[in-house]
Amino acid sequence: MLNVRETKIFSKKIKLRNPILIVGLPGIGNVGSLVVQYLIQQLGAKEFATLYSPHLPYFVVALDDGGFRLVSDRFYYYKNKDKSGSDLVLLIGDYQPATSEGQYDVNDQIVKFFKSIGGKVVYTIGGYASGDNKYVTNPRVFGVSADKKLRKELEKHNVIFGAIPNLSIIGAAGLVVAFAKMHGLPAACLMGETGMLDVDANASKKVLEVLSKILKIDIDLKDITKLQTETEKLVKELQEAAADTASKQASNPNYIK
Amino acid sequence: MLNVRETKIFSKKIKLRNPILIVGLPGIGNVGSLVVQYLIQQLGAKEFATLYSPHLPYFVVALDDGGFRLVSDRFYYYKNKDKSGSDLVLLIGDYQPATSEGQYDVNDQIVKFFKSIGGKVVYTIGGYASGDNKYVTNPRVFGVSADKKLRKELEKHNVIFGAIPNLSIIGAAGLVVAFAKMHGLPAACLMGETGMLDVDANASKKVLEVLSKILKIDIDLKDITKLQTETEKLVKELQEAAADTASKQASNPNYIK
Amino acid sequence: MLNVRETKIFSKKIKLRNPILIVGLPGIGNVGSLVVQYLIQQLGAKEFATLYSPHLPYFVVALDDGGFRLVSDRFYYYKNKDKSGSDLVLLIGDYQPATSEGQYDVNDQIVKFFKSIGGKVVYTIGGYASGDNKYVTNPRVFGVSADKKLRKELEKHNVIFGAIPNLSIIGAAGLVVAFAKMHGLPAACLMGETGMLDVDANASKKVLEVLSKILKIDIDLKDITKLQTETEKLVKELQEAAADTASKQASNPNYIK
Amino acid sequence: MLNVRETKIFSKKIKLRNPILIVGLPGIGNVGSLVVQYLIQQLGAKEFATLYSPHLPYFVVALDDGGFRLVSDRFYYYKNKDKSGSDLVLLIGDYQPATSEGQYDVNDQIVKFFKSIGGKVVYTIGGYASGDNKYVTNPRVFGVSADKKLRKELEKHNVIFGAIPNLSIIGAAGLVVAFAKMHGLPAACLMGETGMLDVDANASKKVLEVLSKILKIDIDLKDITKLQTETEKLVKELQEAAADTASKQASNPNYIK
Repeated sequence: MLNVRETKIFSKKIKLRNPILIVGLPGIGNVGSLVVQYLIQQLGAKEFATLYSPHLPYFVVALDDGGFRLVSDRFYYYKNKDKSGSDLVLLIGDYQPATSEGQYDVNDQIVKFFKSIGGKVVYTIGGYASGDNKYVTNPRVFGVSADKKLRKELEKHNVIFGAIPNLSIIGAAGLVVAFAKMHGLPAACLMGETGMLDVDANASKKVLEVLSKILKIDIDLKDITKLQTETEKLVKELQEAAADTASKQASNPNYIK
Repeated sequence: MLNVRETKIFSKKIKLRNPILIVGLPGIGNVGSLVVQYLIQQLGAKEFATLYSPHLPYFVVALDDGGFRLVSDRFYYYKNKDKSGSDLVLLIGDYQPATSEGQYDVNDQIVKFFKSIGGKVVYTIGGYASGDNKYVTNPRVFGVSADKKLRKELEKHNVIFGAIPNLSIIGAAGLVVAFAKMHGLPAACLMGETGMLDVDANASKKVLEVLSKILKIDIDLKDITKLQTETEKLVKELQEAAADTASKQASNPNYIK
Repeated sequence: MLNVRETKIFSKKIKLRNPILIVGLPGIGNVGSLVVQYLIQQLGAKEFATLYSPHLPYFVVALDDGGFRLVSDRFYYYKNKDKSGSDLVLLIGDYQPATSEGQYDVNDQIVKFFKSIGGKVVYTIGGYASGDNKYVTNPRVFGVSADKKLRKELEKHNVIFGAIPNLSIIGAAGLVVAFAKMHGLPAACLMGETGMLDVDANASKKVLEVLSKILKIDIDLKDITKLQTETEKLVKELQEAAADTASKQASNPNYIK
Repeated sequence: MLNVRETKIFSKKIKLRNPILIVGLPGIGNVGSLVVQYLIQQLGAKEFATLYSPHLPYFVVALDDGGFRLVSDRFYYYKNKDKSGSDLVLLIGDYQPATSEGQYDVNDQIVKFFKSIGGKVVYTIGGYASGDNKYVTNPRVFGVSADKKLRKELEKHNVIFGAIPNLSIIGAAGLVVAFAKMHGLPAACLMGETGMLDVDANASKKVLEVLSKILKIDIDLKDITKLQTETEKLVKELQEAAADTASKQASNPNYIK
């Protein structure tokens, strides 16, 4: 009988060629979520597995059609059109667990499941908050990996390693890479530099550019560029409004008591 | 030997005809609790099972006769007088668990227990807080269900589906419906629209009207109408007192320093 | 090999005659702790068992001799000199668990252990905070019990039952009584009325008077009376100082800005 | 298959002579961490085992070379050059667990692992915060031990026992000593007196002096003395700046509004 008191992954049977996992779970600037959701849309990836866990928040999310979804992580696959290339497994989700025990359990299951379907390489996507909470116009992409070969390849595409002392990488972005290493899988975490925004299209775009190159998959960046432009317009308007208020206050000290 | 370190349901042996479960545990506006307590009283339903769990708060509640009750969920049954109709299982409780692990465990046990006694359909009752924290004069009833047939039937009785984007349904109201679906049971969550009140008789009445129709059980709404009228009188008095204070303040800016 | 990842009770072998358990763990006004510590001292009870649990706070307490004690609950026994009377098991401890799961686990173990050594009746001692946070000059003793016979006997000694609607009894004082009932043991919770104080000797004395009668054991109340008198002197001084300050403020509105 | 859902210690095979464990995990004034890290550096100790646990915080720490480390505890060994002396096992780590269950689990595993490699004696190092949050110029070393022989020996080197009533020793510093005792290993906790500082070189130096004597191992204190001198210079500058500000404020009440 079905038992939802343990973390479980329900999967369709599927055959993938040397699959590469890309993890984009909620986190800083939602860079991971946005990047992987964008890949799913642009590549037309198909859902094939769902992870349920008692460590995820205890609610369901109502859907537009009147149905609902239990809070979950969802796996998609993309079959590479280039027959010499690797297939992709794309992972998105609603939330991350709030406890250490939950994080270890869920992320361990993710790595084991990926390995059980023949997984070869793992990338986790995250955001790096530069700290001053300002919009980052020219975001860098930072990386972390225990695999020297992977590091070298990523450095060719301007991913920066070892630059931020004592950087902590929280949740799936860090743990999945650590657990992948324990299971002998090459793995890297890629972090787009971000600040101020809840959802940062600019940082996400920079990560997508790196992914496009290392995966050798053509990704149309038109839509994310549009989102980035709109965000930047909004940021500019907010900044001008703030500057305006500041100047009014400066010329009239009583403007705000 | 008895062990209270796990969630357990202690039940009398009982035979029910195609039972329908109605879950009314504490939550928003206490709509669920009030609806199911009202059904128990009006139908004269009888207690037959108790759920204890280490995930529920760690205390006992003193009773009027000098005895006490360990915090628990309690199942009641109602044998339908119409021999072609379904019997009811009514679930109320003192509290809901505070952790994800506890919520998953307790709600999983509820669904499995109901299935083990031949359960056929599940309704959970909850409240939907419209957000502006005002008394809702004309509450709507919102629904969520993965079962198209059930959705259609409920829509006939003015239950609204798919209207609130990204609505999260927290605790038993959401999880029991999700777990019921996993166990192959048709299930729906019904939410009365509510605001401001701790216990909303108006929202509860609207849900009772829907239940009366879909269950084809005659429910006397006199007592809940009385409670609703009293609540509305109180709400009106509070609003007038607030308006009075506001007008006094407006005419005399020094009324409150 | 020893394993401290589970709640465990380490006990000397001991033979007791119809033992009665009295539980005095930390809680409101520390009435429970003070009552049972007093009994241990006055009766010269001997320690015979220790409960360790990963649900108790994670530290050790340094002792005067340079040694230490792992945070624990400790069982003492008292052999009744009256050969027709019952022996006592007295339980004190440093802390109570902070989670529901921990409370259920630890209190379940306490009841099972007591049953395993032939336990017959259980009393838990607690405080009842009357709510207005004032020193209670004439504390009442409130009781809760599912056992009618025990209730009647306690009422003879002025223990009040059923007087406080919806009273919640938190932690061991409530759970041990509930679990004892599940294991078929007569049990009652006795609560001394208290307010304002961290350690209330007056409430404790009143509970000791009740215990002395129902246990038919002579308890010398001299020391607790002394403590009560000292406390009341201190309370009086504090009240006079507060009244003095208030009167100074009243006569000079600028005394405190 | 590897499983990171439980606390586990991965160790190289190693043969040690009557090893003594010295635990220096993060805590008050980081005295423990600093002392044991200093020992590792000065003695050129080699890492041989790693403890991973789902009770540790859920992140990885980026390393300078572009790699990373899963949050962990790490064991080092030092082979005593004096053939009649004992070898050392030195334990450092990134964090301590945040829950009681985690603390009990991790510290239990540490003691069992040390016992399994032939461990003989245990010292945990901590800080004792004197409470007034001032820099302690002449820190004392306080001790706690259930082993009378060990206590006597430590007292010869000016470790003070039984001086602080009701002192609570939190986390590994306390639990490892308690669990070692349960496993029949002589154990003591040594606490350097500290205040104000996040990392207290002065308190650490005093503990190192004690360790040097009881371990009969020559430890070069030059580097820690340098760190202590630098810290004290900084403390002095901060105090002078504070005094300066205070005197300016005193002579000009409007200096700070």
